Amino acid sequence: MAHGAGGKATRRLVDGLFVPLLYSAVPDSLGDAARVDIDGTSVAITTDSFVVTPLSFPGGSIGELAVNGTVNDLAVSGATAVALVVSFILEAGLPTDVLETEVRAMANAARAAGVHIVAGDTKVVEHGKADRMYIATTGIGRRIPGLDLGPSRVRPGDRIIVSGPIGDHGMTILLARGELDLEADLRSDTRPVLGMVTALADAAGPALRWMRDPTRGGVATTLNELAIDCGLALHVSEAAIPVRDAVRGACELLGLDPLHIANEGQFLAIVAPEKADAALAAIQATAGGEAACIIGDVRTEPAAAVLVTTGYGGGRIVDMLVGDPLPRIC
Amino acid sequence: MAHGAGGKATRRLVDGLFVPLLYSAVPDSLGDAARVDIDGTSVAITTDSFVVTPLSFPGGSIGELAVNGTVNDLAVSGATAVALVVSFILEAGLPTDVLETEVRAMANAARAAGVHIVAGDTKVVEHGKADRMYIATTGIGRRIPGLDLGPSRVRPGDRIIVSGPIGDHGMTILLARGELDLEADLRSDTRPVLGMVTALADAAGPALRWMRDPTRGGVATTLNELAIDCGLALHVSEAAIPVRDAVRGACELLGLDPLHIANEGQFLAIVAPEKADAALAAIQATAGGEAACIIGDVRTEPAAAVLVTTGYGGGRIVDMLVGDPLPRIC
Repeated sequence: MAHGAGGKATRRLVDGLFVPLLYSAVPDSLGDAARVDIDGTSVAITTDSFVVTPLSFPGGSIGELAVNGTVNDLAVSGATAVALVVSFILEAGLPTDVLETEVRAMANAARAAGVHIVAGDTKVVEHGKADRMYIATTGIGRRIPGLDLGPSRVRPGDRIIVSGPIGDHGMTILLARGELDLEADLRSDTRPVLGMVTALADAAGPALRWMRDPTRGGVATTLNELAIDCGLALHVSEAAIPVRDAVRGACELLGLDPLHIANEGQFLAIVAPEKADAALAAIQATAGGEAACIIGDVRTEPAAAVLVTTGYGGGRIVDMLVGDPLPRIC
Repeated sequence: MAHGAGGKATRRLVDGLFVPLLYSAVPDSLGDAARVDIDGTSVAITTDSFVVTPLSFPGGSIGELAVNGTVNDLAVSGATAVALVVSFILEAGLPTDVLETEVRAMANAARAAGVHIVAGDTKVVEHGKADRMYIATTGIGRRIPGLDLGPSRVRPGDRIIVSGPIGDHGMTILLARGELDLEADLRSDTRPVLGMVTALADAAGPALRWMRDPTRGGVATTLNELAIDCGLALHVSEAAIPVRDAVRGACELLGLDPLHIANEGQFLAIVAPEKADAALAAIQATAGGEAACIIGDVRTEPAAAVLVTTGYGGGRIVDMLVGDPLPRIC
């Protein structure tokens, strides 16, 4: 299961098997979306499959995730989603109303994100397979003009921004499974981040260096991937990281770190210092971005690592997610 | 299971649920690929998931199908595949060598089809949930210039061309499952059809009216969909349809009609009569197209139906596939 958790085992699988065999022609395929030139037009494309269990949970459902996750992967790669295609793998015996509910959720999420679903495919597998339904979604989009994003553009002194409180999605799913004797007033943060990303891009322009959405593996895994890719140190202040009390409490009870918990409606951005305040203000002025904040900065040491500084002046290296404490989160 | 078989139940699901809720903005979304305008460039896009069992079979495997099926959906929509993205849903415990074999099969098929795989996603589900692996593939491509395809362009008098013998893929899968006490020297026809399609397009130009690959549901279902969409009669001569002896024999034993058996490496084309011979010659002159033939023509009666004429001058209406005699064929 760890190979699908988005952490170290996933990265080994991708680096060891998929990159050399499948993606050899694509130098930057580890980002959330690839760029393809078609008749001189740069088209962004991304794909994701969704196997979340349970299918619906406070704040969202698999259909909504399948749309927002794909719209967001395009957004953080610097592209506006134009069209989605969707593949359903359905379990025989799935009640029609469950399917219809998820199809409606997809339609509503697509409308909210301003994107069209233009084609699809359906396969049915035997009862007992596929946990009622899996959905694979692919999105294509156009570049947001004026951006040049990538780990190689990150510089010491740059600021690290997060769009809002972390860990809501993963912890909501964990509690929704009902396997723990734990209740909390929590909702998934699933939502499109394109509006916030567009406001940020307008305010920061080329001072915006890099973006990603910290889904599987959480903020710690996403920042570790960036640290490895750019070779720099990402210093994050523990006190500055927004975490809701319910998420923090559940994490403490379960021995989990909020930095490893999945998010669906947040993104991380690296912005040059001279534009950091304007960039933050632009996100905060956008609906849903009110809780955005600067959580740290980029330095040179310790190289290729993420260092969390505590309130007492101490620090701890936070690694990628290892293993999978929370399978089937998206 | 019938809802995933590509026949009548699938069409009801698509027409009744997906079209009104999801694809309402897309009038021609029932073709094998949709068209999306990005900054003035027309991008063709198609998606498919693959759940074939067994994973490998004489002549191919799921990885190869996942590439060729997508390349072919673009080809018959009049587009050249430029890039693919791929989503894996893997069962926990899947041996690494099985995954590597399929990843290599995808890489080889992509190379043979001249297309790049540019991005991917991997999810892992519990043991018992995904029959080792499911693959969802999406392809984007550029239009082949000079073509104008669609059911509305089909006219009485047009000829119906098939690219080669039918039923090889479905019958190969059925026999590969080993559930029948039946052996035959059969291989799946999985292959890219783009070379043949390009030769046909060059030879026929705008006289090429319509193309499709008769996968799930077979030639009968694909022709019935066309007949319904254009409102005309498709007359097919039974004697002219190429079927290998092994496929014909197995169909007779099992009470199946070769016209309902799935194909993976064939396509159907409708060509105006004045270009039909040149079009056929162009396919036959292309590697793999030697066995192409004209199997019938378009008339006005019986409206919106497929009529198979027998050697004795009789005829029978052949309907879409009803139910699913062969689940999990691709």
